[in-house]
Amino acid sequence: MTELSRAAAERLIRNGGAQRVSQSACDALIDVLEEVSREICVQAVQFANHAGRKTVTAEDIKLAARV
Amino acid sequence: MTELSRAAAERLIRNGGAQRVSQSACDALIDVLEEVSREICVQAVQFANHAGRKTVTAEDIKLAARV
Repeated sequence: MTELSRAAAERLIRNGGAQRVSQSACDALIDVLEEVSREICVQAVQFANHAGRKTVTAEDIKLAARV
Repeated sequence: MTELSRAAAERLIRNGGAQRVSQSACDALIDVLEEVSREICVQAVQFANHAGRKTVTAEDIKLAARV
């Protein structure tokens, strides 16, 4: 199940300068961003657990995005 | 201006296994995903233009995500 909307994906592609955007392009961007997100979030949760916290913080996310 | 919602970001972090999620963690994830998206989408628009199309397709997005 996707968490990001097709409307948000279309806005992101238009922000990149697109004049027209196919529906499948929106779905492809959602796939890519959710895969990137999955890797970051699993890592961020591990960092929070490692620090003895149940709450994932911005620092966990930023560190995971760099690893 | 952000295109992705805090609610979507929180769902993505919870999908990673988080028990609790700080609001700033959601904002940090949005920043990371929008930066990744920006790079992919600018590149995808260039690929579409290069192919003589005004419409950005799934293939443009997939190629841009690999570059």
